Amino acid sequence: MQERSELEAAPRPRRGRGRRPAGEVRADVLDAAGGLLLDRGMGTFTIEAVAGRAGVSKTTIYKWWPSKGALALDGYFHVVEAVLAFPDSDDVEADLTTQLRAFVRILTETPAGRVIAELIGQAQTDPELSAALLERYSGPRRDLAVRRMRRAQAEGQLRADVDPEVLVDQLWGACYHRLLMPILPVTEEFATSLIANLLRGVRP
Amino acid sequence: MQERSELEAAPRPRRGRGRRPAGEVRADVLDAAGGLLLDRGMGTFTIEAVAGRAGVSKTTIYKWWPSKGALALDGYFHVVEAVLAFPDSDDVEADLTTQLRAFVRILTETPAGRVIAELIGQAQTDPELSAALLERYSGPRRDLAVRRMRRAQAEGQLRADVDPEVLVDQLWGACYHRLLMPILPVTEEFATSLIANLLRGVRP
Repeated sequence: MQERSELEAAPRPRRGRGRRPAGEVRADVLDAAGGLLLDRGMGTFTIEAVAGRAGVSKTTIYKWWPSKGALALDGYFHVVEAVLAFPDSDDVEADLTTQLRAFVRILTETPAGRVIAELIGQAQTDPELSAALLERYSGPRRDLAVRRMRRAQAEGQLRADVDPEVLVDQLWGACYHRLLMPILPVTEEFATSLIANLLRGVRP
Repeated sequence: MQERSELEAAPRPRRGRGRRPAGEVRADVLDAAGGLLLDRGMGTFTIEAVAGRAGVSKTTIYKWWPSKGALALDGYFHVVEAVLAFPDSDDVEADLTTQLRAFVRILTETPAGRVIAELIGQAQTDPELSAALLERYSGPRRDLAVRRMRRAQAEGQLRADVDPEVLVDQLWGACYHRLLMPILPVTEEFATSLIANLLRGVRP
C-alpha cells in the first residue's frame, strides 16, 4: 500500500553491541512501537513485543515509558508526526486542507485509524491511558494546529475574535466523530467541506 | 440537582398483577434502564438489575433487546430524548443554540456524559455494541438534526449547497471530541461559538 509506506520510518542503521546513545535507542523503540501498532493494532501490542522488535530490554523501555498505553501513544505520534506536519505557505486554507486531507488518509487508508479509535475507546475507562492520550497525543497535535491558526490570525486570514481551539474541534474533532461513530465515512471531500463551511460560513 | 430531575421520567402509575399492555411494560423497562444508567453508570449496568428495577422478568427484556448494550442505548436515548428535542421556531440559529446548549448541559451536569463516553469507548472494540450505538442512538439523533437543518435550507436560512450531515459533525461531533479527549471543557459558551463560527464564517 502506498500510504502505508508513507508512514514507515526510514530504516535506521544497526550498530554492533555496546552502549548506544540514548536518543538513538529511544528512536528505535518508537519506530518499533509505531510499526507494531500499524502492523497488528492494539490487540497484540505489548511492551515485550516492542522490546523484541527494537532489540532492547523491557527494563530499558520502562525507564522511559510508565505503561503500555504511554508507549503506544508515543509510538503512534512518532509514526504519524511527519505526515501530519503543517505546511507553511501563505495561504491558511491551502495549508489546513493539505494537512486535514493527509490526516484523513492516515485514518482511512492505514491501520492507524483503527488504532487511535481503540486507544481513545480504551481511555474512556482507563484514567492512566486517558492522561497519556491527552499529554502525549491530543495536546501536542492540538498545539500544532492552534499555532498555525494563530499565525493566520496575525496575518489577517482568520478573524481575530475566533478561538482557534474551537476550530480544532470543528475540523479534526469532526473527523474523530465520524471515525468513532461511523455512520458516514471519513473522506477527503468531507475534510474539504469542513474547511469550506468554516471559511465561507454557511449562511446564504 | 436541577438538571437531574429534568431527565427523570414522570412516575408511571403501577397497576396490579396481570397482563399489562406491551407498550407500557416496554416503557417501564426503558425508564428503569435509563434511570439505572444515570444513577450508577455503565460499570454496574446489567439486564438483571434493570429487570429488578422495572419489576419484569429477564425473559421479557430479552424479547425486545438482544444485548445489554442495546438496552443501555435505548434507555439512554429514552431519558435524554425529551430534553434534546429540537425547538421549532422560525430562527434556525436560535433553535440550534437552544438544543446544543441543552445537549451540553446533559453531557456536563448529569452522569449522562460519562455514560455515553463509556458506551462509545466500549463500542470501539465491540462490533455488536457499535452497531447498536449507530442504529439506536447516533442515527436517530443525527436524523433529527439533519431534518431541522433541511427545513432551514428550504426556508433560505442556510446555504442550499451545504451538507447538513457535515454540520452535525461540526456541532455535536465537536462536543463529543471534547467529551472523549477532555483537554478543554465542554461549556455552553463553546456550543454558542460552534454555531457562530459556522453561521458567520471565520474569515475577517
